[in-house]
Amino acid sequence: MSQNLNPGMSKRDLLSLIGAAAGGTAMYMAMGAFDQAKASNFKGPVKLDGSAKGKSVLILGAGVAGMTAALELGRAGYQVQILEYQDRVGGRSWTLAGGDTYTELGGATQKVGFSAGNYINPGPWRIPWHHHGLIHYCHELGIGLEPFMQVNYNAYVHSTKAFDGKPQRFRHIQADYYGHVGELLSKAVNKGALADTISKEDGEILLESLRSWGALDKDFRYVKGRESSNRRGWDKEPGGGLTAEPIPSQPMTAETVLRSGLWRSIAGNLTWDHEFSIFQPVGGMGEVAKGFERAVGKVVRLNSKVTAIQQSEAGVTVNYLDTKSGAKMTASADYCICTIPLPILAQIEMNVGPELAAAIRSIPYSTSCKVGLEFKRRFWEQDDQIYGGISYTDLPNSQISYPSSNYGAKGPGVLLAAYTGGVPGYELTALSPQERIARVLEWGSQIHTQFKSEFVGGVSVGWHRVPWVLGCFGQWSEEARAEHYKNLCAMDGRIMLAGEHASYYGGWQEGGITSAIDAITRLHQHVQAA
Amino acid sequence: MSQNLNPGMSKRDLLSLIGAAAGGTAMYMAMGAFDQAKASNFKGPVKLDGSAKGKSVLILGAGVAGMTAALELGRAGYQVQILEYQDRVGGRSWTLAGGDTYTELGGATQKVGFSAGNYINPGPWRIPWHHHGLIHYCHELGIGLEPFMQVNYNAYVHSTKAFDGKPQRFRHIQADYYGHVGELLSKAVNKGALADTISKEDGEILLESLRSWGALDKDFRYVKGRESSNRRGWDKEPGGGLTAEPIPSQPMTAETVLRSGLWRSIAGNLTWDHEFSIFQPVGGMGEVAKGFERAVGKVVRLNSKVTAIQQSEAGVTVNYLDTKSGAKMTASADYCICTIPLPILAQIEMNVGPELAAAIRSIPYSTSCKVGLEFKRRFWEQDDQIYGGISYTDLPNSQISYPSSNYGAKGPGVLLAAYTGGVPGYELTALSPQERIARVLEWGSQIHTQFKSEFVGGVSVGWHRVPWVLGCFGQWSEEARAEHYKNLCAMDGRIMLAGEHASYYGGWQEGGITSAIDAITRLHQHVQAA
Repeated sequence: MSQNLNPGMSKRDLLSLIGAAAGGTAMYMAMGAFDQAKASNFKGPVKLDGSAKGKSVLILGAGVAGMTAALELGRAGYQVQILEYQDRVGGRSWTLAGGDTYTELGGATQKVGFSAGNYINPGPWRIPWHHHGLIHYCHELGIGLEPFMQVNYNAYVHSTKAFDGKPQRFRHIQADYYGHVGELLSKAVNKGALADTISKEDGEILLESLRSWGALDKDFRYVKGRESSNRRGWDKEPGGGLTAEPIPSQPMTAETVLRSGLWRSIAGNLTWDHEFSIFQPVGGMGEVAKGFERAVGKVVRLNSKVTAIQQSEAGVTVNYLDTKSGAKMTASADYCICTIPLPILAQIEMNVGPELAAAIRSIPYSTSCKVGLEFKRRFWEQDDQIYGGISYTDLPNSQISYPSSNYGAKGPGVLLAAYTGGVPGYELTALSPQERIARVLEWGSQIHTQFKSEFVGGVSVGWHRVPWVLGCFGQWSEEARAEHYKNLCAMDGRIMLAGEHASYYGGWQEGGITSAIDAITRLHQHVQAA
Repeated sequence: MSQNLNPGMSKRDLLSLIGAAAGGTAMYMAMGAFDQAKASNFKGPVKLDGSAKGKSVLILGAGVAGMTAALELGRAGYQVQILEYQDRVGGRSWTLAGGDTYTELGGATQKVGFSAGNYINPGPWRIPWHHHGLIHYCHELGIGLEPFMQVNYNAYVHSTKAFDGKPQRFRHIQADYYGHVGELLSKAVNKGALADTISKEDGEILLESLRSWGALDKDFRYVKGRESSNRRGWDKEPGGGLTAEPIPSQPMTAETVLRSGLWRSIAGNLTWDHEFSIFQPVGGMGEVAKGFERAVGKVVRLNSKVTAIQQSEAGVTVNYLDTKSGAKMTASADYCICTIPLPILAQIEMNVGPELAAAIRSIPYSTSCKVGLEFKRRFWEQDDQIYGGISYTDLPNSQISYPSSNYGAKGPGVLLAAYTGGVPGYELTALSPQERIARVLEWGSQIHTQFKSEFVGGVSVGWHRVPWVLGCFGQWSEEARAEHYKNLCAMDGRIMLAGEHASYYGGWQEGGITSAIDAITRLHQHVQAA
């Protein structure tokens, strides 16, 4: 559209012209191109103005995308029904707690034996502050949020190839990396090596800033002393009385920090997805499912396995199996919003155009395996002073996440002791649940020696063995995005897809929610125009 | 002691020798010198082995220092009593909530009108993970802890001298500062300017690390694109469906970031006192006071104003006034632990040696003023997507802190709208409570335009007008520390001082707790040796 801009028009004129000619969506997209739309894809409470004209919509899948669609379409006056394969709503927004049972592909059944209050979230587990849609619904639906401790300076970073395999505290690595970066850049500025890039005046400000940020001394050196220990911590911490004087700790050399490779753990904490504030629902991610269920549970039909989706000029008809009774059933509506994950949808008979059909078959799903272990006590808090946060390792379990709730509780606690993708994710998924736990106990013991002696029990979810997804989330390559994304999202007759796979927020609930809102907005525009 | 080391002795031999000859404290200090004592001054549950020999201890002040002393001395078998000036325990560990009343020096009385659940902590408000003593007692005494959101990437940093006074998001400043630091250092490395400092191999690792940490592109440039927006945020955030594609934002130039001075806000988040994990008590800092009160409240005598402290060979006698009845009273004990803040203690008649007397008179107290404002709604969450954390400004209010609890609550909310020291702290304290609020409303409006229209009411505490402290906390210069610290902490006959002023953790409850433990440990050693 930007190719046709009339340079004589003002931006406002042009926007209003586009708006009149092409509807809100086009206007919104044009606004984005002008950098005026600073907010998220989620624009606040959904408003579908105009009549639903008595139309009905059948929604497939009661995950957050399907339930968002049902909630907002219902409010706009549509007749809605959701068919859900499982015996619960929420899909991947899921908590496994004591008493829960989970059967994976292959038939292995795990009964979770965790104590009351302990759980893992096998799927999404974090809600960054900018997931405006999800946070909006959490507030609206009474889902309590509490901070997720993404970063913990006292958690470990661990490499089998550095420090003889001994885990290091994150604060030592970050403080020393920053200190040495600050010292090195100060040196370059002071010797005039950047005179072609930065003015003398700005160079002076830069030096001042590096001393502040890098904890350098008056000569711009990162050395043992009060400044560096006030970042990395002390050999003897300050206290009170006559035994109070702190003793500074010795920073590592630049060479030691760089060659350890442990600086890799710093960047992850700085990314858009992981920046503070970041939340989790109080009680586990299943509370998101329950919140939506309170609002739309009455239109959800559980235990309904979709076997065919057929559309005609008259409407959409879905065949499904009642998995409890075995009865073959049929549901019909004017339109269908389908949120079934693509690896499942690709196996369902469905008369859509070749572009959508190709898109459905073209998106592989990423792998991921999570293993939660319960221990007799919170040794990570009691022995290691690690309250929440994540330790990272180059072992196949990849990370150990400490609970971000009930700090200081005296009973048993649960660690997310493995959260791993890629090749290690496939390998772990390929094992039996018992073998997964045995492996993770071995790996975890290299970071926390207490793992084996304090172990109680565990549960694991390898997402390629989850029968109703067959993978973790849609993994879009640049090429697939260019070729298939618009086709996947476009309305095909009376059918439209939604879910995290139909978003740029793959693997996040926010992708499912914003995709559902985008889909129902277009559906409503279609109904208005018809 | 280290001058007398025998080079032929092993470290272990030496430690055991020191331990035998000089007692636990000396051994502990020697261990520190060898870098073996990595933990805090607080070493876990206090154990005072041996008999209390029927001795009694009178404790002056029921703040956390005094109550810690009472708790542990009581457990060790001592007879303890606390005299407390106020009509409540806790001292500066204090919460002001709706219904509370506070009268400052000069007579101005404020009645707090906050809605239920809203409060400010006029004194300490944060508990870093390494305040081992305080966290130990929180866990033991059933004081719930929740994360304090120290860092919020979406909070503001504000300078009246930059960006025409428009507040900036912290994430923009930090991401762009890191990006430009990374790009500049990469340039210096690539042009060989640091070849005398860092080897070629380490230089290659450094470049790789800078690309990761600084979000640089493949050519080590910090430019508009996916990498930089994945740190600083997007002009249009990613979402779902056909309106989903994110639009990158434009980084600022290095010159803009440097000259804004807003990089000053980065370092504060990296310091020992502010690093994650960091907590607050659920319900306010007054819960710490209540927790201790549950344990030792029965030995506290409230409304007891100490007027004289006299010691003799037979014991310690304290004269005090019952502030309710006006009756002159006396209490006696074998020993006295005095936690009265120094500006008050300096005015009390007391027969101690010249060294302690000089120390008591030599420590000025820092100033601080906090102003809490209640607003009709949490506009910072609803309009600005700021959930907890702190905005910083060069205006006299210095910072605005957003509540770290009840995220998403729909009713009125309270901001700590000023927390300021130094000259602005004195100036604010000098005003009437009404005038303080009027000023803070003006300043805050420059960061949040909603301040005046949403304002409900407020409360302020200027610490130099708090009648029972006359200042915020003891401010030790290097010179004062060298001359007076040991004299302040040393036992003077039958009297020993404790409190944050007798610590290297000035202004923190951990200083009070560790100072109390150090003092009672020495008192107990004295009793054992007697």
